[in-house]
Amino acid sequence: MSKKHTRGAASIAFQEPVYIQSSASIVSKKEGEGPLRDSFDMICEDPMFGTKTWEAAESTMQKEAATLAIGKAGLKPKDIRMLFAGDLLAQTIASSFGIAEMGIPFYGLYGACSTMGESLSLGAMAIAAGYGEHILCATSSHFASAEKEFRFPLGYGNQRPFSATWTVTGSGACVLGSCPPPKSISDKKLPLRVGNGCAVITGITTGKIMDYGLKDSLNMGGCMAPAACDTIYQNLTDFARSPSDYDYIFTGDLGVVGQKILIDLLADKGIDIRNVHDDCGLLIFDNETQDTHAGGSGCGCSATVLASHILPKIAAGEWKRILFVPTGALLSKVSFNEGESVPGIAHAVVIEHVEAE
Amino acid sequence: MSKKHTRGAASIAFQEPVYIQSSASIVSKKEGEGPLRDSFDMICEDPMFGTKTWEAAESTMQKEAATLAIGKAGLKPKDIRMLFAGDLLAQTIASSFGIAEMGIPFYGLYGACSTMGESLSLGAMAIAAGYGEHILCATSSHFASAEKEFRFPLGYGNQRPFSATWTVTGSGACVLGSCPPPKSISDKKLPLRVGNGCAVITGITTGKIMDYGLKDSLNMGGCMAPAACDTIYQNLTDFARSPSDYDYIFTGDLGVVGQKILIDLLADKGIDIRNVHDDCGLLIFDNETQDTHAGGSGCGCSATVLASHILPKIAAGEWKRILFVPTGALLSKVSFNEGESVPGIAHAVVIEHVEAE
Repeated sequence: MSKKHTRGAASIAFQEPVYIQSSASIVSKKEGEGPLRDSFDMICEDPMFGTKTWEAAESTMQKEAATLAIGKAGLKPKDIRMLFAGDLLAQTIASSFGIAEMGIPFYGLYGACSTMGESLSLGAMAIAAGYGEHILCATSSHFASAEKEFRFPLGYGNQRPFSATWTVTGSGACVLGSCPPPKSISDKKLPLRVGNGCAVITGITTGKIMDYGLKDSLNMGGCMAPAACDTIYQNLTDFARSPSDYDYIFTGDLGVVGQKILIDLLADKGIDIRNVHDDCGLLIFDNETQDTHAGGSGCGCSATVLASHILPKIAAGEWKRILFVPTGALLSKVSFNEGESVPGIAHAVVIEHVEAE
Repeated sequence: MSKKHTRGAASIAFQEPVYIQSSASIVSKKEGEGPLRDSFDMICEDPMFGTKTWEAAESTMQKEAATLAIGKAGLKPKDIRMLFAGDLLAQTIASSFGIAEMGIPFYGLYGACSTMGESLSLGAMAIAAGYGEHILCATSSHFASAEKEFRFPLGYGNQRPFSATWTVTGSGACVLGSCPPPKSISDKKLPLRVGNGCAVITGITTGKIMDYGLKDSLNMGGCMAPAACDTIYQNLTDFARSPSDYDYIFTGDLGVVGQKILIDLLADKGIDIRNVHDDCGLLIFDNETQDTHAGGSGCGCSATVLASHILPKIAAGEWKRILFVPTGALLSKVSFNEGESVPGIAHAVVIEHVEAE
């Protein structure tokens, strides 16, 4: 039985199609001033999203992104069989008080900034196995709730080193399904489909925790690069592919520092990804004009770049096959203050263009 | 495709057998003085587990439980295809620094005290779909790390109301597999098998978040009872069963207060579970002599009671079919201090006795 699906040591190749039926992205002002400004579904100028706390703001944003994704797939919350979601906050409260209240059977995840990779992996596993017709995968991050959770009160005006990344205020959500998305619903509700072109998840590689002993929470790119290296290497090995078999390999939020380390680490293994690598954290902000230092980060970084920038290009056939590798840094303020290292994890999702019948 | 597996609105009936090949439990001194003292695999008198922090203690305990479960199944860490684990701490650091370092592909979960239900559900989904031969499911909690995380410093000697539960210091782990567990390995390594009797997961019901607006973090039984009610009701509906179709329905950690509410809420729906209901939080401590007030709680409560007390009785055929329903309270100290409610969630796992061929 298992030989049918498993590939190599840590990958799965799905025998049943897993369509990404819709994707939605919501960001705030700073992200809306960046290079992807025209791609997001919604840019909310108010970072409080009409609420009184940063946490409630993030919950609201996540719920809106989920609602939008469900609507774009032509569905209602009751049509969603299962929801995989998580966020960066302690006890993942952005999710518990956000989309979780939509009344959808819910599995909560914690994968730090790799969460969109984790939720898409588990969602795809469930769809391919026939455990539901429609499954929602979502995550979020918020600059202010994350700084409060992990670092210093914003009011301190604390200086940030150049290796630091800027947590994206954003939420991304995707509806997965066993059938192609509908052709069109209305001008305002567009499923992820360009003509007959669709995006499908054809495989995943589950990440292992990698800990090189780095302890600098303001250099998360460096902490996460070994995990990205391990997962990408594992994916290429398990599927017997080379980097050129992908139009792009997108890591989540390694930023300027982490990208260099990743390229070096893979070069040590004889693998050159320079021609196909990009990082969602480098795509979402213009580091030269937006003062974000090493780039964007947070669960919402890779999730919104996937939903707004990557998936439409796959559906349109501009890219035939990409590897999406969100990266997470597994620290808490307690573990950091106790002098522990910052281990990393990365989950890879293979997404391909197909023509629906 | 999906009609084959799905049952009703939120359940799955597995067509392929999902064996629980082994289970392991580790607890500390107080749990080792309770009614289940003779059932646990290991009782560690030192609540620090030889480490310098409560968090490292919990990580060490979780790693030991996982190692024990893998060994009892006659396996090595490299034989485990995938690991589902989580805990109560912010950013689930007990897991990140515990079993996660065993080099097993890892999906991190956050389901509060429902985590063992969530990890068994996802593990069973993966095994039944053929995504691996062996999958490890684990969780932990620690009295001292949980009090630090959610309530008051232990040194305050803060008084606890009678509705409060006592977080179990314990970790439980199970290895799931597509084949029956081996007959025996050695006297010290006993898989979950009594003669040909084994325990299999035959179905699951995914919980929804239920929020009745309660805000008392020292009455978590009351906060979680509506979620337990909803999941049990959904399970009975989806599988067209009545309570008497189960030898027992075990909730996770509702305690004295939550149990009463659960029984009342189900009675309102015309369902009487009094003859078959028990709660892991009421089984693990002797409330009369151990001063634990409403009972035990924490991810480790239901996980260790399942591993030590429930599963061996199922393998032995003493019970033919039980429903395991760990319950989680979805709060953080931030959400609590901001005046938010404490939503609950519960995931149900159907476990049955079978005779292996």
